[in-house]
Amino acid sequence: MEIVSPASHEIASLSTRVWWWFEEALPKRLTAMVIETASNTKKLAQDDPRRVTHSIKVGLALSLVSLFYYYQPLYDNFGVSGIWAVMTVVVVFEFSVGATLGKGLNRTLATLLAGALGLGAYHLANLSGHIGEPILLGLFVFIQAATSTFVRFFPKIKARYDYGLLIFILTFSMISVSGFRDNEILELAHQRLSTIIIGGSSCIIISVLVFPVWAGEDLHNLIALNMEKLANFLEHPSVIEYFKTSENGESNDDKSFLQGYKSVLNSKRNEESLANFARWEPCHGQFHFRHPWKQYLKIGILTRECAYRIDALSGHLNSDIRAKPEICSKIQEACTTMSLENGKCLRELACGVRAMTHPSSAKPHISKAKIAAKKLKLLLKSRLWEKDADLLAVIPSVTVASLLIDIVNCTEKIADSVLELASLAHFESVDPTVSPEKSQVGQGEPDKPLTEITCPQVVIIVDGSENENPPGPLTNRHIEM
Amino acid sequence: MEIVSPASHEIASLSTRVWWWFEEALPKRLTAMVIETASNTKKLAQDDPRRVTHSIKVGLALSLVSLFYYYQPLYDNFGVSGIWAVMTVVVVFEFSVGATLGKGLNRTLATLLAGALGLGAYHLANLSGHIGEPILLGLFVFIQAATSTFVRFFPKIKARYDYGLLIFILTFSMISVSGFRDNEILELAHQRLSTIIIGGSSCIIISVLVFPVWAGEDLHNLIALNMEKLANFLEHPSVIEYFKTSENGESNDDKSFLQGYKSVLNSKRNEESLANFARWEPCHGQFHFRHPWKQYLKIGILTRECAYRIDALSGHLNSDIRAKPEICSKIQEACTTMSLENGKCLRELACGVRAMTHPSSAKPHISKAKIAAKKLKLLLKSRLWEKDADLLAVIPSVTVASLLIDIVNCTEKIADSVLELASLAHFESVDPTVSPEKSQVGQGEPDKPLTEITCPQVVIIVDGSENENPPGPLTNRHIEM
Repeated sequence: MEIVSPASHEIASLSTRVWWWFEEALPKRLTAMVIETASNTKKLAQDDPRRVTHSIKVGLALSLVSLFYYYQPLYDNFGVSGIWAVMTVVVVFEFSVGATLGKGLNRTLATLLAGALGLGAYHLANLSGHIGEPILLGLFVFIQAATSTFVRFFPKIKARYDYGLLIFILTFSMISVSGFRDNEILELAHQRLSTIIIGGSSCIIISVLVFPVWAGEDLHNLIALNMEKLANFLEHPSVIEYFKTSENGESNDDKSFLQGYKSVLNSKRNEESLANFARWEPCHGQFHFRHPWKQYLKIGILTRECAYRIDALSGHLNSDIRAKPEICSKIQEACTTMSLENGKCLRELACGVRAMTHPSSAKPHISKAKIAAKKLKLLLKSRLWEKDADLLAVIPSVTVASLLIDIVNCTEKIADSVLELASLAHFESVDPTVSPEKSQVGQGEPDKPLTEITCPQVVIIVDGSENENPPGPLTNRHIEM
Repeated sequence: MEIVSPASHEIASLSTRVWWWFEEALPKRLTAMVIETASNTKKLAQDDPRRVTHSIKVGLALSLVSLFYYYQPLYDNFGVSGIWAVMTVVVVFEFSVGATLGKGLNRTLATLLAGALGLGAYHLANLSGHIGEPILLGLFVFIQAATSTFVRFFPKIKARYDYGLLIFILTFSMISVSGFRDNEILELAHQRLSTIIIGGSSCIIISVLVFPVWAGEDLHNLIALNMEKLANFLEHPSVIEYFKTSENGESNDDKSFLQGYKSVLNSKRNEESLANFARWEPCHGQFHFRHPWKQYLKIGILTRECAYRIDALSGHLNSDIRAKPEICSKIQEACTTMSLENGKCLRELACGVRAMTHPSSAKPHISKAKIAAKKLKLLLKSRLWEKDADLLAVIPSVTVASLLIDIVNCTEKIADSVLELASLAHFESVDPTVSPEKSQVGQGEPDKPLTEITCPQVVIIVDGSENENPPGPLTNRHIEM
């Protein structure tokens, strides 16, 4: 009989385990990782194909600018400074035209200004002899860096010129410090500026000419999309069915769709940065240079306020405490009308914004919703209720009704704000007597099928058919930039 | 009689106007601007004095790193590459330690990796002869830039390694492109890496040693502050007085104080970026390296949900439709108790988080609030109401009551989440029999007066006195970073 020591046993089992890990577990895990990454990549690209074009554009710009190194005549002119053009492209090229323009202009102007000041500081320090020079230069750098860093804390400056100030500190320090060793400081400043201008302008040219992504257009669409999301919630069958006494189980399957409005709650920063970028953009498409981007932010704030109410409403619709059927049936009609008309109004507003037409067709919906709200109030006042109904059973439906009344008020504010935008941005006014199908086709390309024009939802709603199926979930691409 | 031509008249009036503008209007406007800027600057500095120290720290770091140029022995070693250290300081030095560490590590690692890959690409391209080399190099740069740019769109990577990828593209392009002209490419890569390490480490050392600003601590305080803001709203006299029939005019004066909770609604991005920075930070103060920062985000989400409800509640409290006094007086006690106990619970939780002690004293408050909610439900069920009360008059108070019940549920979720944090982060458990004053003084520095310790509010609340005056508005400094 062979006696095996426990230690050798252990080593054997360890080596088997290691072997097993390399042979079995590792390949499996790696395969799973590769598959997951591939599917994530595919999703990312499908959600917004502009991401792929952007990546290609960056590669293109970099390869183009590298020519300053490869192509002899260009190299003879710029020498090693050509590398600044490469750096500029990497740092300045952003997803949208506005962001690229903002960064490019910030970088160029800051370099120009800081270069001039740096030269001045260098010459001033030069006067104070060889011992005083480094001390004075160090002092200048310190004061300049501390001041500029503090200025970056001002919210308004941070929003628009943060990058410019960073480059200002950088260039000033570089020019004034280099000057201490390098006597060709003017040449250095000149080369740096010209290569930055070359790099920056090639970024801007490529981002404007090759499949441009406009931040303003994104903001415009985001605002419309957010209103549509709220409309989707309000027109959703499961919201409408809350007041119906029929089985509620069936509406549970697409709860995820009801979560669509949630992204509206946190859209503030995204809207603000898009508006900041949009201000840099020249006129494009239907947007002029001084398009009222601030008004979009106002609409955004009101949309979010409405979304908060909808969030509260959603909590009630999903809660276990259900309203009593007999009470529900009494206020069903008014509440359903309010929710639907509200949703329709928001959708009309969104369509108006998208198509840049005067959303005059939204007004009838808001008045219908207001009439329904009045009716509801009268209904509640008229004591149609059984005298012995306990108040606790009434609470859920009354709360929901009251939230709906709130939402009607919010929607009215949004409508006012959109109308203000329409007059500020000179939206086209559409003849309301023209049937919506006609007017839509008239605005879109006439050859395109109806389902492909900018705002297909309008067809479902405006013609008054009680089709409660909302359109499929809208892609989120404008949000996840 | 002298005839004056209209043109000369115009010129005279124009010159007077121009003169007036330079003499009168310009100095006035300039003075006003200077005064406004000065007061803004003062406010910015007072809101968070760390901004001033940060600015001085950046100036200090830059002056220090400039020594590489001024001091001969250092210059002999690093030469012109010393400028990379200056650049690194400008770009890497951020407000908090976590952000600086994250950027510094990203920059160093990305430079190392991209430098190695760039060298590899250069040698590979070198093999293909003088004509093939630029083509192959251009291709490498294109593929690398396009791939890395696309990878930057992955949300998880964007959150933590965005800057690293930027530097990766930059360094790879620089090294591989420069290699085409410069034969001392290895020297270049080595100098760039070492100066970046020097610049980055001096940033990190200064930001850790000189008045450090920890993102983790900021997140910790922000979460506590947000809960306190909600508590301030719920405990505010004007909220409590809504149910009292006495005059309402007096509470209108400090409406601005009631707006404190609004900043909670939009705190998501701030919390997320702080949590991202905090993950880079080493252990500091009471925070260990793997402190459960994710749990803070969970609490943040729940706090925001509660804030949405409070926003809806605030809308009702400010609306013109007032509840009927006789109805208010009936539910007054229960609602006031709910609001107050809720506020106390939130304040206890905030205090617990701030002091890093187990917030066991919050539980009694939440149970009191729940008991009040139950009472309220019973009250509504028991039909104490006059049989002829119309429902419309009841709606406002019932809605407010129902929102308060909602808020109780939200608070309970927040409490559970904070308790989870307390166990995850091993918060100290305080003996509940010890009086709060004692336990507070025991934790704080014993020499400090009671009003200066971290969490003075606890004294007001835990000892059960019905002091409804909330503490003065808390400074907003942790939010406006």
